[in-house]
Amino acid sequence: MNQLSRKSCVACRIDAPLATEEEIDEFIRQLPDWSIVEMDDVRQLKRLFTFNNFVDAVAFTQKVAVLAEDENHHPAILTEWGKVTVFWWSHKINGLHANDFIMAAKTDQL
Amino acid sequence: MNQLSRKSCVACRIDAPLATEEEIDEFIRQLPDWSIVEMDDVRQLKRLFTFNNFVDAVAFTQKVAVLAEDENHHPAILTEWGKVTVFWWSHKINGLHANDFIMAAKTDQL
Repeated sequence: MNQLSRKSCVACRIDAPLATEEEIDEFIRQLPDWSIVEMDDVRQLKRLFTFNNFVDAVAFTQKVAVLAEDENHHPAILTEWGKVTVFWWSHKINGLHANDFIMAAKTDQL
Repeated sequence: MNQLSRKSCVACRIDAPLATEEEIDEFIRQLPDWSIVEMDDVRQLKRLFTFNNFVDAVAFTQKVAVLAEDENHHPAILTEWGKVTVFWWSHKINGLHANDFIMAAKTDQL
């Protein structure tokens, strides 16, 4: 368990600041399996999880969904045969907030 | 219920033929809410379903997953807050098979 996974999401307002470059550098070092990607000019955290079949992939999707509802912060989850790709970002601010790194760390623990 | 949704998937072998342009034209007329998209040179069927919240979106993802396992034909399902995007194509032949149109019709009925 790293520092990030022990934190909880805070309410993210529409005027909340994006994570600074320094924060992103610090957070991403704690999340070696995640990469930062840009989708439609919005930076997102992305990780691919692999499984032996479709049923296990769907079960993982369900776990991520429960986590998301618990923390009231919602990712995009792409479910396919044998793989699930999870994307975290903050819709309200069109980019990365500390919350996203916290959720990525919690996803790693599922 | 249209003609397609009454059919079942047949085993799709690696040497199965892609759907012909004539078949695609005929099938897609029965699926007005689906579009054909190209992802990495592979043609896929795509439809966006919308919901009022995340929980309902996840519940729909689960229903599509059960259908997929029942028919042993598996889509890509992108689950987000209030929306689910479903993609059907045949991995083994890198494109569209009659099975994909059948699965799209069955997805519409969920």
